[in-house]
Amino acid sequence: MDLNAQEKKPAFSQRLKDFPSKLKGSVIKRMKNVQKLGKDDPRRIIHSMKVGIALTLVSMLYYVRPLYNSFGVSGMWAILTVVVVFEFTVGGTLSKGLNRGFATLTAGTLGVGAIHFARIFGHKGEPIVLGILVFSLGAAATFSRFFPRIKQRYDYGALIFILTFCMVAISGYRTEEILVMAYQRLSTIIIGGTMCILVSIFVCPVWAGEDLHKMIVNNINKLAKYLEGFEGEYFPLPEKISNETNSCVRRAYKSILTSKSTEDTLANLARWEPGHGRFRLRHPWKKYLKIAGLVRQCAFHFEILNGYVLSNDKAPEEFQNKIQEPIATMSRETGEALKAIAKSINTMSKDSVSVHAHIDNSKKAIENLRIAFKSFNPETEKDLLDIIPGVTMASILIEIVNCVEKISEAVEEFSGLAHFNETLDQKLSAEIGQHQLLHRGTVKPVLDGDNSSPHVLITVHDEQPPITKEKNVLGEEKTRADVV
Amino acid sequence: MDLNAQEKKPAFSQRLKDFPSKLKGSVIKRMKNVQKLGKDDPRRIIHSMKVGIALTLVSMLYYVRPLYNSFGVSGMWAILTVVVVFEFTVGGTLSKGLNRGFATLTAGTLGVGAIHFARIFGHKGEPIVLGILVFSLGAAATFSRFFPRIKQRYDYGALIFILTFCMVAISGYRTEEILVMAYQRLSTIIIGGTMCILVSIFVCPVWAGEDLHKMIVNNINKLAKYLEGFEGEYFPLPEKISNETNSCVRRAYKSILTSKSTEDTLANLARWEPGHGRFRLRHPWKKYLKIAGLVRQCAFHFEILNGYVLSNDKAPEEFQNKIQEPIATMSRETGEALKAIAKSINTMSKDSVSVHAHIDNSKKAIENLRIAFKSFNPETEKDLLDIIPGVTMASILIEIVNCVEKISEAVEEFSGLAHFNETLDQKLSAEIGQHQLLHRGTVKPVLDGDNSSPHVLITVHDEQPPITKEKNVLGEEKTRADVV
Repeated sequence: MDLNAQEKKPAFSQRLKDFPSKLKGSVIKRMKNVQKLGKDDPRRIIHSMKVGIALTLVSMLYYVRPLYNSFGVSGMWAILTVVVVFEFTVGGTLSKGLNRGFATLTAGTLGVGAIHFARIFGHKGEPIVLGILVFSLGAAATFSRFFPRIKQRYDYGALIFILTFCMVAISGYRTEEILVMAYQRLSTIIIGGTMCILVSIFVCPVWAGEDLHKMIVNNINKLAKYLEGFEGEYFPLPEKISNETNSCVRRAYKSILTSKSTEDTLANLARWEPGHGRFRLRHPWKKYLKIAGLVRQCAFHFEILNGYVLSNDKAPEEFQNKIQEPIATMSRETGEALKAIAKSINTMSKDSVSVHAHIDNSKKAIENLRIAFKSFNPETEKDLLDIIPGVTMASILIEIVNCVEKISEAVEEFSGLAHFNETLDQKLSAEIGQHQLLHRGTVKPVLDGDNSSPHVLITVHDEQPPITKEKNVLGEEKTRADVV
Repeated sequence: MDLNAQEKKPAFSQRLKDFPSKLKGSVIKRMKNVQKLGKDDPRRIIHSMKVGIALTLVSMLYYVRPLYNSFGVSGMWAILTVVVVFEFTVGGTLSKGLNRGFATLTAGTLGVGAIHFARIFGHKGEPIVLGILVFSLGAAATFSRFFPRIKQRYDYGALIFILTFCMVAISGYRTEEILVMAYQRLSTIIIGGTMCILVSIFVCPVWAGEDLHKMIVNNINKLAKYLEGFEGEYFPLPEKISNETNSCVRRAYKSILTSKSTEDTLANLARWEPGHGRFRLRHPWKKYLKIAGLVRQCAFHFEILNGYVLSNDKAPEEFQNKIQEPIATMSRETGEALKAIAKSINTMSKDSVSVHAHIDNSKKAIENLRIAFKSFNPETEKDLLDIIPGVTMASILIEIVNCVEKISEAVEEFSGLAHFNETLDQKLSAEIGQHQLLHRGTVKPVLDGDNSSPHVLITVHDEQPPITKEKNVLGEEKTRADVV
């Protein structure tokens, strides 16, 4: 230890000398960090401004004499509410604001009731009764916060309930003007909460729902990106161009592996939001989580597949050449299917025809792969051992095709619930409908021998409601949004 | 729509009739839910009681006349602090309490400074200057909350900073006794915060660190459970006993797939906690996340493997019989290795000898599997196609063995940093050391031909510090804990 201390001394004086340049470097680094954070999502800067505006507005309760005369020091509660309630998304602000408002109202009422009840027991009994009430309601409300459903949606409300009840019940012991105080507090909290909600909705709103929608689209596109470059990476060209930057983009799917909590939070907040833009009031936000779950399941397969792609232990060239064509088609067509799914969600228009076409093509490629496997005749015993990595890689890729088919089914179900636009699908189906019909006719018998998943009969046009319904939907959206 | 309404009418009257019985059923269901929630983790009930106790204690500031005389209505801030700061874990309470305390102190000082600064500009200029300060500091502090590092550890502090600064700066405009007010508020916040921290630490504490520790152990055990029943599920006996309940236990690993955010939160809170029980002050909590990441990577493989286990599409019997023995050994030995790792972490005693022995056995089984593959001679073309699911399953199982080896390496590194007890390892190594040495001698040449991962030279006993160090560690632990 002593030796270490001695060694450190010159280092320390050196560090003292380097301090100015280091400080400069660190400040520049920090400034760049700030810039990057703002550039990555400029809404962050706007949000900070919005909070500043709301705070300045609410401080008028103090600065403007007539307002101060009517609310007095209770104006403080409006400031407190703005700071605590103002969240990044509209859903977050609404959830906290409504929770706070209702919890304050109910707990305040209960608190005033508790005081009147305790006063029955005389001056000596009052604090004891109040103490018992504070203990039992505080403990019960704290326990209620462990219920998953309350924790998910009303956790903040429960907290504010405890807070308000205790404050009213306890401070009521010392003040006679409890009703005036309660009224002032409630009204300033409502003023603060309303200001937050208004600023949050009308000044460059950030909708949790839209973020969730974009996140799912992005995640599906990330999967597509990986498959897009799959052939080039697994079957590298002789010159072997190393593209490190590209690899980083292609590994973007890794973020999906652990994105569940973000998705859950966004879906939860989205349910608090009124209809906005393309989303109606009762947009099926929960369905996004179902799709996200399937996308994540697909990403798990990618993670395993990636291990085989990065491994240097590839099958012999002869075998690789045989499987390259079907594998390339599988990955390309599945990637295209994912892109079509992402586009369909993004534009909120049905596009099952081209999605199914790409999936069917992938399935045909699976059959070709089987034929390639069959035609490969292991001459020596060693050959069988050598092709194992290639076989495993192919098996996982087949599983990925199945996963993507499940995603497409879930999106199809979702597109009905979310009232997707149908023009794109109908236009496309008119164009390739005939071709598709022929196409399917030839594919089906081949698929019967498929071991990957049971063949699903594709009934694209049967359940499509007439195009006039779309207008109704838009009309309904407006009325619903008005109610909120 | 009208038709639907008519159909609903009788249903409604029926529902009215059923209401009492339904209400009773729902109440009973809810009561059972409450019971279950408490039984699942009795610490929840204790936590609720603790909050109740802290609230009752803090309400003394109002009930006891001398206390009320010195703090007045500022006692309210103590109640507010208790409600907001008291968290389930000690780490959570400490993090919030310290954040609140420091943020209030700095923001309060800045706020008082801001008022004095603003007063220079006269009665007309004061609110304008204060408004500009509130806007800019509020916006800047809000923006700072987007920095990942601040968000992770000081988010609550930033919130309280904005809150306190605004309240002091704004309300200072109307009151002359700003210093008295600031003093009273700060002292009541300190009283409330200290009470929370004391109750949280000394009344049945819930340590986030211990929870994290147990969670990692549990997760590793979940993986082991899956491998334990693997043979029985993949190679079912002819009578085919269906054990649904067992399957539920075995699928417990699925929770690991999405447990990242819980682990991150616990590790983050654990860093706030003082030394407790077996954990020193600077226990390497971050290393748990590294192990947890590897465990999750392993769980991804399980998820893919599970698809092949549940699939009805198994390889032909002849092939299955050939691979059953090595596959069974692999899964059993890897499961045993995982169990040994979990036990080693749980008891905080090194046990690398038996872990390595089990991993070596699994690796020998991999070699046997290769021999089995070689000896299988596909007679027809169809045979090659048929064995693909079996081959894929085996490949993934081999990857799992590699994953487990990585976990064992990470745990070994961790055991040094966390000062694991070494007696178990030394006792065992004395017993099987000789055998182990022989063992390794035979394994190594076989492994050279292994394509799964580069062989890692196992140096178990070289880096073990002498046993006397352990006492030093314990001594150090005590001094460090006292400092906190």
